[in-house]
Amino acid sequence: MEWQEILGLVGGFFTTTSLIPQVVRLYRLKSAREISLTFNIFLGVGVSFWMAYGIALSLPAVIIWNAISIVLVGSLLFAKFKYNKQ
Amino acid sequence: MEWQEILGLVGGFFTTTSLIPQVVRLYRLKSAREISLTFNIFLGVGVSFWMAYGIALSLPAVIIWNAISIVLVGSLLFAKFKYNKQ
Repeated sequence: MEWQEILGLVGGFFTTTSLIPQVVRLYRLKSAREISLTFNIFLGVGVSFWMAYGIALSLPAVIIWNAISIVLVGSLLFAKFKYNKQ
Repeated sequence: MEWQEILGLVGGFFTTTSLIPQVVRLYRLKSAREISLTFNIFLGVGVSFWMAYGIALSLPAVIIWNAISIVLVGSLLFAKFKYNKQ
């Protein structure tokens, strides 16, 4: 593996796993009033494009982390709809 | 510009600008209880590594959007500290 790919893997580790404590926090607080729906939707669309970019340029770091991000953004969006009104 | 770069520019447009409505929402609500501090910190560290990755591989889309993201993550972190207790 090229050393540049390691930078991407570390970057992806932090940006992707950053969503885990955020998702956990919403489910724990049972509240998602402060979370912006536009943030959720834009993040989902953006992450999908980044994954296409990774596939197009064969960048493993970009592909792997964005695939995981899509799942996490889905959980965030689910929490937003589930807890928005409470 | 290569067509692959366009995918990255679109992806970056959405993931980066997604933070704008989130930052605006916190400042408008004057509340940042639901925002996870770990989310903030991990996002800042991750985005910094992605920028290094973009510089190392000379990927304009990666460099530009992550530079803007660093500023927005800073605003989010500032809101978290400013409004956390209220």
